[in-house]
Amino acid sequence: MKKEVLDPQGKVVNQTLKNMGYQNITNVRQGKYFEIEINESNKDKAKIIAEDICKKLLTNTVIEDYKINLE
Amino acid sequence: MKKEVLDPQGKVVNQTLKNMGYQNITNVRQGKYFEIEINESNKDKAKIIAEDICKKLLTNTVIEDYKINLE
Repeated sequence: MKKEVLDPQGKVVNQTLKNMGYQNITNVRQGKYFEIEINESNKDKAKIIAEDICKKLLTNTVIEDYKINLE
Repeated sequence: MKKEVLDPQGKVVNQTLKNMGYQNITNVRQGKYFEIEINESNKDKAKIIAEDICKKLLTNTVIEDYKINLE
């Protein structure tokens, strides 16, 4: 979720953590997570595929950001 | 989600990617993602807090795994 977009679920988790006594939590944002197995030995190519998938299918770019971690 | 646990949303994304022509996607799993800002300069302490939060609040350990990335 982009920072300007409200995230009520994140807010609830943040408040709950405060109620549980965690004093040093300053912010919580919730989002989606996808683990995608790509059969491609070239890491650069795999990243391009992942970027493409994020843009074309997984991300609503109006309200969401995405971040890619290759493993 | 643990591997033994069914993930229908991941399956749908996987099938959709195949339908879109991505031939080399072998598996997709969907999960939740939390971005937690912790006001703690010591990285080891921050990790302990994050672990604690995952175990006590965020993860249903019967069906879910968790992974922590410090930034």
